[in-house]
Amino acid sequence: MEKKIIKNSVVDALKEIFELYGYSPLETPILERYETLKEKYAGGAEILKETFKLKDQGKRILGLRYDLTVPFARYIAMNPNIKMPFKRYQIGEIFRDGPIKLGRYREFWQCDVDIVGVKEVSAESELLALAKNAFEKLGLDIIIKINNRKLLNGILKSLGIKENNIEPVILTIDKIEKIPLKDFKKELKKKKKKISDKQIKEIIKIFRENRIDSIKGKIDNEEGRQGIKEIKKLQEYLKIIGVNAKIDISLARGLSYYTGTVFEVFLKDSEIKSSVAAGGRYDRMIGSFTGKGDYPAAGISFGLDVICDAIKKAEKLTVADIYIIPIRNLDKCLKIANELRKNSIKTDIDLMEKGLSKNLEYANAKKIPYVLICGPDELNQDKVKLKDMISGREELISLNEAVDRLKRLKE
Amino acid sequence: MEKKIIKNSVVDALKEIFELYGYSPLETPILERYETLKEKYAGGAEILKETFKLKDQGKRILGLRYDLTVPFARYIAMNPNIKMPFKRYQIGEIFRDGPIKLGRYREFWQCDVDIVGVKEVSAESELLALAKNAFEKLGLDIIIKINNRKLLNGILKSLGIKENNIEPVILTIDKIEKIPLKDFKKELKKKKKKISDKQIKEIIKIFRENRIDSIKGKIDNEEGRQGIKEIKKLQEYLKIIGVNAKIDISLARGLSYYTGTVFEVFLKDSEIKSSVAAGGRYDRMIGSFTGKGDYPAAGISFGLDVICDAIKKAEKLTVADIYIIPIRNLDKCLKIANELRKNSIKTDIDLMEKGLSKNLEYANAKKIPYVLICGPDELNQDKVKLKDMISGREELISLNEAVDRLKRLKE
Repeated sequence: MEKKIIKNSVVDALKEIFELYGYSPLETPILERYETLKEKYAGGAEILKETFKLKDQGKRILGLRYDLTVPFARYIAMNPNIKMPFKRYQIGEIFRDGPIKLGRYREFWQCDVDIVGVKEVSAESELLALAKNAFEKLGLDIIIKINNRKLLNGILKSLGIKENNIEPVILTIDKIEKIPLKDFKKELKKKKKKISDKQIKEIIKIFRENRIDSIKGKIDNEEGRQGIKEIKKLQEYLKIIGVNAKIDISLARGLSYYTGTVFEVFLKDSEIKSSVAAGGRYDRMIGSFTGKGDYPAAGISFGLDVICDAIKKAEKLTVADIYIIPIRNLDKCLKIANELRKNSIKTDIDLMEKGLSKNLEYANAKKIPYVLICGPDELNQDKVKLKDMISGREELISLNEAVDRLKRLKE
Repeated sequence: MEKKIIKNSVVDALKEIFELYGYSPLETPILERYETLKEKYAGGAEILKETFKLKDQGKRILGLRYDLTVPFARYIAMNPNIKMPFKRYQIGEIFRDGPIKLGRYREFWQCDVDIVGVKEVSAESELLALAKNAFEKLGLDIIIKINNRKLLNGILKSLGIKENNIEPVILTIDKIEKIPLKDFKKELKKKKKKISDKQIKEIIKIFRENRIDSIKGKIDNEEGRQGIKEIKKLQEYLKIIGVNAKIDISLARGLSYYTGTVFEVFLKDSEIKSSVAAGGRYDRMIGSFTGKGDYPAAGISFGLDVICDAIKKAEKLTVADIYIIPIRNLDKCLKIANELRKNSIKTDIDLMEKGLSKNLEYANAKKIPYVLICGPDELNQDKVKLKDMISGREELISLNEAVDRLKRLKE
């Protein structure tokens, strides 16, 4: 329950920011026809292996959704007259039939924000502004790293890396900061298409230096030049809207469907080293699903679980702000509860009149921050006793004063 | 998307009220071990037939949850040291493998609020106050009907109805307002244990009259007297907290697990005749699941889909309050968008600079209520043009004035 309280507060904060940027909620089914899923994941054997499969009473073969991307692509394919740009967010459970072990679950939540129909990098700048805003709202300090897949491809082409080696080499480059240099070299040497020692040396130099301006002169192809143009333009937009982002030319993101900008968001000074949000531009994916031309698109995915871990809020066992303890006055106390709720104070009340000490013990166990004691002594003086459960301090005040006090504490 | 916008607004309103009454959110898995589900639904062959069954790669047999009640009972069984009373709400998808037809889906949402550990009818009064508050918040006028299963049992016992005939007769009585009298009589006559014509006459008289005070003298058993006591006490509480509820002694609720209070909430003057929320007391169910004594419990379930139908909000195609149209000034407009969002105004912006008329057409198609036109003409005067898309009225005003205007409109 505590976990769900934290998660709800994170989800609420994220939704508020998504809508502030004009993204609307979309819901798609959890159960889909397996045929549809299969078709969409064409080529992704690993994905199909981890997709749960079941039958209904009508012998239809169904699957549980594996991610939120395919249902989204399908929604667009099924609504060809949809007005572009189309901006949506979706937060929901997805299912993976992988080995069960610690920290790996059968079902977990994904949280995706996507914009379809905008070719310009202004789309990515909007997603990053939204991310900045969201993490501010959550009280988390972040570092944003950006890169561009066209630039990565361009650099490797300029170094003479063979076309069908580029993707695997990029996956290795993504690890340059994460593994020892010795292992990095070893991994590059193992690639099918041989990479010369000279090429390896150049790769290490370029990606360790991480200086985009010194790369510029070395690029000898249109794709790389386009990459530089895009990343520069994105930087301009980000500057205008006040978003800090660092270029990291080794940043690749594992997935092969990215076509331009890629980005990852990390926490500043945190034990959590994995990214808390990530995404990029994927201009070809939706088109390949729908088979109907190009759908330029960019998206960001928030890691709900890792964000919840980072929030590490005071453990809450209930949402209640206050607990009313009636002493032989349940009737009056029910009216007092009404009054507090009218003032937006989350109020719990003992409905069983189980006595003061048992009730204090209950409020304490549930970590409810305040109790309101309402016995004949208090009510005969038109007062209530407000007790701060942390400091232990008690005050005999009027109900109005108690309401004011509690409302101020919530602000 | 429009549907999801309405649903989100309903869910948000409900959550706010649930928490105001001190109910906390709980989340349980969608996928459970089939064994667990099977055990819990012992005897419910119909339910098991409609439970989706599947296997994971480790050959474990799993099921998709059929409702939110069993996962809740299981949660309580697995947490024996849980502090009572335990108050939770849960909103989520459930799955039924029934015949697919119009208006019947494989998956839909349930929304349950339950309190465990309170024997007194003060629990039911709290749930009904919460319901009243929730429907007020949603702007829906309601009628609450209450009854008590002990009272129903008591009446039928007093009429000499045989013990094992009581449950089937109650299910028929539930229909007294819904089917023609002729059919009602026919259904009673078909019961296994014969019901005499005299008994049928008395049943019709009592349940058509629907007068609790005239019943009192006819009750000759403890269960019936306890039922009257409980319903009277509940009425007292409801009066104190300002909730109107009508006693309807024919109200039974289909499910057999109710043990005391039952209630249904209907819309006043609405085309929707089915209940929008319903529930009651079920003191024995959790105990029978856990096998560990009594768990007095009461709950209410909200019909999310029917509530959404009733809301019938203006069709919204996006959450955006305003759409910014930059004319050769995207940079400045990005800053304006920032400013609006800082003021909690849900803002969308053209990121492609696609020109005035295309943009107006877009805002119109998406039913966005306002647009902000920001071209050189406007910006050179330090102004923006705010256009009301419904009236067509345009105003040349400062950005601050526009912000004030939009904030006032949201209040």
